[in-house]
Amino acid sequence: TRSKLPDVGTTIFTVIGQLSAEHNAINLSQGAPNFPCDPQLIAGVTRAMQANHNQYASMTGLRPLKERIAQKISELYRTDYDVDSEILITASASEGLYSAISGLVHPGDEVIYFEPSFDSYAPIVRLQGATPVAIKLTVPDFAVNWDEVRAAITPRTRMIIINTPHNPSGQVFSSADLEQLAAITRHTDIVILSDEVYEHVVFDGEPHHGMATHPQLAERSVIISSFGKTYHVTGWRVGYCVAPAELMDEICKVHQFLMFSADTPMQHAFADYMGDPQGWLSLAAFYQRKRDLLQTMLAESPFRLLPSAGSFFLLADYSHFSDESDSEMVKRLIIDCGVATIPLSAFYTDGTDNKLIRLSFAKDEATLRAGAQALCRVK
Amino acid sequence: TRSKLPDVGTTIFTVIGQLSAEHNAINLSQGAPNFPCDPQLIAGVTRAMQANHNQYASMTGLRPLKERIAQKISELYRTDYDVDSEILITASASEGLYSAISGLVHPGDEVIYFEPSFDSYAPIVRLQGATPVAIKLTVPDFAVNWDEVRAAITPRTRMIIINTPHNPSGQVFSSADLEQLAAITRHTDIVILSDEVYEHVVFDGEPHHGMATHPQLAERSVIISSFGKTYHVTGWRVGYCVAPAELMDEICKVHQFLMFSADTPMQHAFADYMGDPQGWLSLAAFYQRKRDLLQTMLAESPFRLLPSAGSFFLLADYSHFSDESDSEMVKRLIIDCGVATIPLSAFYTDGTDNKLIRLSFAKDEATLRAGAQALCRVK
Ligand SMILES: CSCCC(=O)C(=O)O
Ligand SMILES: CSCCC(=O)C(=O)O
Repeated sequence: TRSKLPDVGTTIFTVIGQLSAEHNAINLSQGAPNFPCDPQLIAGVTRAMQANHNQYASMTGLRPLKERIAQKISELYRTDYDVDSEILITASASEGLYSAISGLVHPGDEVIYFEPSFDSYAPIVRLQGATPVAIKLTVPDFAVNWDEVRAAITPRTRMIIINTPHNPSGQVFSSADLEQLAAITRHTDIVILSDEVYEHVVFDGEPHHGMATHPQLAERSVIISSFGKTYHVTGWRVGYCVAPAELMDEICKVHQFLMFSADTPMQHAFADYMGDPQGWLSLAAFYQRKRDLLQTMLAESPFRLLPSAGSFFLLADYSHFSDESDSEMVKRLIIDCGVATIPLSAFYTDGTDNKLIRLSFAKDEATLRAGAQALCRVK
Repeated sequence: TRSKLPDVGTTIFTVIGQLSAEHNAINLSQGAPNFPCDPQLIAGVTRAMQANHNQYASMTGLRPLKERIAQKISELYRTDYDVDSEILITASASEGLYSAISGLVHPGDEVIYFEPSFDSYAPIVRLQGATPVAIKLTVPDFAVNWDEVRAAITPRTRMIIINTPHNPSGQVFSSADLEQLAAITRHTDIVILSDEVYEHVVFDGEPHHGMATHPQLAERSVIISSFGKTYHVTGWRVGYCVAPAELMDEICKVHQFLMFSADTPMQHAFADYMGDPQGWLSLAAFYQRKRDLLQTMLAESPFRLLPSAGSFFLLADYSHFSDESDSEMVKRLIIDCGVATIPLSAFYTDGTDNKLIRLSFAKDEATLRAGAQALCRVK
C-alpha cells in the first residue's frame, strides 16, 4: 500500500505508554490527569443521558454550550464571537485542529509552525498536499525568533500555527510576541491557527496572551480549545473552535463530513458546568501548585529544570551529567528508575536532541512525589 | 477565502431539522431514534466515569471492546480479525469513513460510489484531491448495474464505496452482488470501503451480506460500523472500523492525528454491553415492526411505498399524484401537513429528482402513527 504519511510510525505517546505499563513505571509522560474530575461533571453527563439527550447534536454544537463559550471569551479576552456563525463544538481539540487545517489549507500552500511541536501539526498539513515549514524555537528559552518567521514567509504561506501555552516547553506568548505576529501578518491573508488548549493554565499571575486578546489578530485567527484539558477529562473528546465567520464556514464544511456532531450528553454536561466560572478561574493556581511541588522535589535530583510558565509540562536538562540521547535517557528512566517521561526529540521532525526530557505534572500529589523520588535516583 | 468545497452548502439534515422545528413538525427525517436507549447502557457510562475512566483511551481503542467486536464478527460472519492490528475504534462511523478515505485515497485517484448516497462520501473524496465517480443505482429497485461498474473502472480507480443496507433506499446487497464485486475487483488493488452501519437491521429473516461474509472481499475491504445505530445512541459518537492490517496501518495514521482516541467512558459501556448478543440479535425484528407499522398505516395514504429490505428508511413515491419536485413536496409536507421527511434528490450530486421522499422509521410508535396520519392528509 502506498502511504500518504510514509515516515509516520507509532505515536510517542503510545510507545512510551506501552513501555511504561510493561515496567509498571510512574507515568509522568502524557498530559492526562490521573486524578478524578469533579463528580458534579459526571452527574451532569448522567443527567443528560437520563433526559434522553443521546442523539445527534446539531452540527455546529449545542447552542447553550456555544453561548457559554462566547460569554467566557468576551469576559476574559474582550472579543465577541457570534454564537451562530463563529463557534464550533468539535469532538476534541485534535478534531478542531484537523478540521481547521483541512478546511483552510490547500495543496501547494505552506504552513509555518514552531518546533518542538505537538506531533499532529506537520502530518495534518502534509495530508493536505501542503508543505509544513518548521521554525525552531530558540534553546533553552523556547522563544520565537520573529526575524526567522519574517524570512520564512513566502507568497505561498497560508497559515502560521501558534501554540501558547506551549506543549512541550511550557513557554507562553508575551504581548510583545502578539505585536510581532500582528506586524508580520498585517496586509497578508495569512491565517493564524492558535492551539490554546492550555489557555487557563498560565502561571505566576500572568494573563493568557491568546489571539482573542488582540483584535487585529483575532480577525485572522482560528482558536482551538479543549474541555478535556480544562476539566480533567481528556477522554471525553469535546473541544471547541472559534473563528471569524468567513473562516468558520470552511472549517464547518470539513467538520460536517468528518464528524457531523460532537458527543451530545457531554456537551450538555459542559454547558451546565460552565455556569460556574471557578472551573477555569481556579485552574492556573491548581496546576501551579503541582508545578511547584515537582520543582521543589526535583531540587534534590541531578536534573536542571527549565522554567515552566504554563501548560501541564516542564523540561528537564541532563546534559551536564550524561551524553545519552534523550530517547536513551527516557528508556533508561523507565527501566532503571521506574518513571516515564517523553524525550523532547520526539517533538522535532528532524529528531533534534537537546538532552531534554518533558515531565507532565498533570498528576496527583502522590504520583508527583513518587515520580520525583524516582528521578532523584538517576545517575 | 478560497474554498476546497465551494459547492457544499448546509447539510440537508440541518436544513430540514430547522424547518421541521420551526413548524413543530413530526420528524421522520433523520435516522436518529426518538426513543430512549436501554438504561443499562447509561448505567454503564456512569459506572465507567465513576471508576475514573475519563482520560485518553489508547489510540486504536479499548482492548476489551475490540475483543468483543472481533468475537461478534467471527461468530456472525466467519471472518477473523486480529484484535491488535485490524480493529480500530473510531469517534463515530463518520470519522471512520473519513479516516479510511483520507488514509487510502491519494490525489488523482478515482473512487467509485453509488447514488443516491449518504452525503459525505463524495466531499471526503474531493478533499483528498481525488475524483468521486458516481454510478446511479437503477430506479425504482436501487440495485447496482455491475456492467456500469465494470465500465467505470480505470487504472486510477483506487476504491469502491459500498453501503449495505443502503441509506437512503433501504436496499441490501445479495450474495450475487458480492460475487459480482469480487469478480470485478479480482486481480486489481482496488480497496472496498463498506459502510455497514445498518448491518444488524436487515429484514424478513435475511442474513446481512456484508464484506466480512466473503473471504475474498474481506481481504480488500475496510468495513465501517456504528454503535450509535445499533444501540439507539447516535449522539455518543463511537463506531468502529475493521480492515486487513496493511490497510489499517494507513487508516490509523490519519485517525491518530485527527482524533487520537474515541470517548473513553462510552467505550467501556459498550464493551460491557456487548456481553449480551441480544442487543444486536434483536435489532432486525425491532425495526421490522416499525417498518411494518409505517407501511400499514400508509396504505391509506396517496403515497406508494417502495419496499425496504434494511436500514432505518423507506422511500415513498408521489409521482402519480403530483408534479412537484421532491424538495417542494418535502417543504409542503412540513408546512401544510406537519411532517418532516428528506427529499431523495439531496442524495444525488446532480439533484436528480425521482419524485421520491425518504421516511425514517427510527421513531417510537406514537410518532410513526402521527407521522403516517399527517402523510395521509396530503393532496
Ligand atoms: C494525545 S496526547 C495529547 C497531548 C498530551 O496530552 C501530551 O502532549 O501529552
Ligand atoms: C448525520 S445524519 C447520519 C445518517 C442519518 O441518520 C440519516 O441519513 O438520516
